[in-house]
Amino acid sequence: MRITEIRENTASISSSIRNAYISFSRMTISVVAVITDVVRGGRPVVGYGFCSNGRYAQGGILRERFIPRVLETPPRDLLDEAHDNLDPFRIWDSFMADEKPGGHGDRAVAAGALDMAVWDAVAKLAEQPLWRLLAERYNGGRHDERVLVYPGGGYYYPGKGLEQLQDEMRGYRDQGYQVVKMKIGGAALEEDLQRIEAVLGIVGSGRALAVDANGRFDLGTALAYGEAMREFELFWYEEPADPLDYLLHATLAEHYPHSLATGENLFSRQDLVNLLRHGGLRPDRDWLQLDPALSYGLTEYLRVIGSVEDHGWSRRRLIPHGGHQLALNVAAGLQTGGSESYPGVFQPYGGFADDIAVEEGYTRPHDTPGIGVERRAKMYAELRRLTET
Amino acid sequence: MRITEIRENTASISSSIRNAYISFSRMTISVVAVITDVVRGGRPVVGYGFCSNGRYAQGGILRERFIPRVLETPPRDLLDEAHDNLDPFRIWDSFMADEKPGGHGDRAVAAGALDMAVWDAVAKLAEQPLWRLLAERYNGGRHDERVLVYPGGGYYYPGKGLEQLQDEMRGYRDQGYQVVKMKIGGAALEEDLQRIEAVLGIVGSGRALAVDANGRFDLGTALAYGEAMREFELFWYEEPADPLDYLLHATLAEHYPHSLATGENLFSRQDLVNLLRHGGLRPDRDWLQLDPALSYGLTEYLRVIGSVEDHGWSRRRLIPHGGHQLALNVAAGLQTGGSESYPGVFQPYGGFADDIAVEEGYTRPHDTPGIGVERRAKMYAELRRLTET
Repeated sequence: MRITEIRENTASISSSIRNAYISFSRMTISVVAVITDVVRGGRPVVGYGFCSNGRYAQGGILRERFIPRVLETPPRDLLDEAHDNLDPFRIWDSFMADEKPGGHGDRAVAAGALDMAVWDAVAKLAEQPLWRLLAERYNGGRHDERVLVYPGGGYYYPGKGLEQLQDEMRGYRDQGYQVVKMKIGGAALEEDLQRIEAVLGIVGSGRALAVDANGRFDLGTALAYGEAMREFELFWYEEPADPLDYLLHATLAEHYPHSLATGENLFSRQDLVNLLRHGGLRPDRDWLQLDPALSYGLTEYLRVIGSVEDHGWSRRRLIPHGGHQLALNVAAGLQTGGSESYPGVFQPYGGFADDIAVEEGYTRPHDTPGIGVERRAKMYAELRRLTET
Repeated sequence: MRITEIRENTASISSSIRNAYISFSRMTISVVAVITDVVRGGRPVVGYGFCSNGRYAQGGILRERFIPRVLETPPRDLLDEAHDNLDPFRIWDSFMADEKPGGHGDRAVAAGALDMAVWDAVAKLAEQPLWRLLAERYNGGRHDERVLVYPGGGYYYPGKGLEQLQDEMRGYRDQGYQVVKMKIGGAALEEDLQRIEAVLGIVGSGRALAVDANGRFDLGTALAYGEAMREFELFWYEEPADPLDYLLHATLAEHYPHSLATGENLFSRQDLVNLLRHGGLRPDRDWLQLDPALSYGLTEYLRVIGSVEDHGWSRRRLIPHGGHQLALNVAAGLQTGGSESYPGVFQPYGGFADDIAVEEGYTRPHDTPGIGVERRAKMYAELRRLTET
């Protein structure tokens, strides 16, 4: 058994939306196919992966560093002990060879796409849905039958007023979501408070609404928003400021009594450990959003879960950014807290299986081998192009 | 006045050397040319830049994100107030548009190469050596006539024994260097101690020797090396462990009484601020090695100097990694602590002007407009290829 080829390409997930920090009008991702020499049903087993949104495609790093290193490694050194499947940890070590420590950014995103494709192949070769393979290998066979999901939405776009925002949120509720999320920080505080109150008019309670500042605020603004939003007792107040400014988060947590959430722009286990050590977050209420498809993949995320528990936190406080099927598999198979979801944006890569509904704020895992990309028709059609030429 | 074109290419700086963490056998860098429409002596004014070693070329990020954003910005928005030169801060803002916060890695390296080329162009357009322009704009006209430099050497390579190591160090002393540096952590402690003692036999005192573990050690090993090396009173003990493990550094600083140095694998102002806040380093003896050609360029480094001083440190504690002419200009014009130098490796990009010697451990700044790439013949011949086709 061996990897015969690894292909990558850049896909557009352009969306005419803004958060408080960036426009997504030119957003791209990398898509990856890991092709094996194992043939099932007349076709080679192929693992597919892609990086999550927000940090752009990473074709340069994949083509120039990661893919050649994997393909130059003797194939048997990439197999597990029994030599009956690929070993994601050995493959991870092979593509990270001769990479210096620190500097966890675009490299972590490239690794996220490649590592996802590897795990999709591994689960397909094992003829198991990834979540079940994870449950059996790393979670004593336990798994969750349903996974908490919430739509990442409420973006700013030209001409969007309070009514459109309310319509959007009503739509999410109609689709079965309970907790919804909206952006803040792209307007003045007074206008954002009007937007929040408009959405509360739809969802009824702050316990069903999360807000996301996308790292925009300085300490004074973060505190001012916190004070103004305090009465709403929101589900969470996300990424108030620079994700690496741990001291700011510790100060905010001293003043804002309700849930904070951050981590989508931390890209390694070590960065998350720094947040736990220095960020003053509270294990009984705050949320950690590190996204495995941006931060060295599931392979690193398994180490993340270990470190989170070493620091006395429950893995239930982990709800990844990104709204992709990898996060859903992780949540179901490793019993973390849930996953973001993108029913409306970053298509066709946002969302889960076409034929599995969201009910009362939860969705269920799929039953096909791998991550489940074949259960998402438009996305799978795009991914398939990698292996059709 | 406008930028007419920005070109980039990948250059090999392959060296058959190892540190404790990686091999440099396939190391590459990005080289960049910023071409203006200003003609001097019959040729357009061109700024040249390159990223520092250790983190690979970043052509993907430059081609797909940074260069298009600069070229799509209305040219007058990239000029300074007087409209008589390019404005590096506005150009920096243009290429960092729609980039999320956090994740400072390869993106910072790409920015380092592009930003260096911009500053080279700015100094050439101002008809000043960059160090003098920096002194006048940002340092009240003060500058240093000589700059502390030390050779980054003492690498591991196959067949290199103690005699070759001693010969290498003797060579640096013959070239005029006083303080020399050698790698540790690529061998067992006992062997490394023999290597250190062999070099001390050449340089005479630990005050003339720095050692560099390149982030290899865990806490126990870092402490053990510190204890074993304590009697030597070394010039510094560099990058003992993961550069982002601030708590480890704080613990080590409690036990190791002499100078520590780190920062070459921190790539932003915020990461360095975290080191100052949480890393337990001591402003009277420790060294900060953030490399502007890896960490968003001189534009970010000016902010770094501000933050270092805001935290009560002297800018003299800043000695960048990288051994490139940008660091020499920064040290001379902004009166920081000095610069690494590569008389032997990473050619032709290691080293300063061909015709300016090192004397008693110091070198002098050049007197040609720009960063001084024209004063380094082999490097300039490679850079020139960017604009000759």
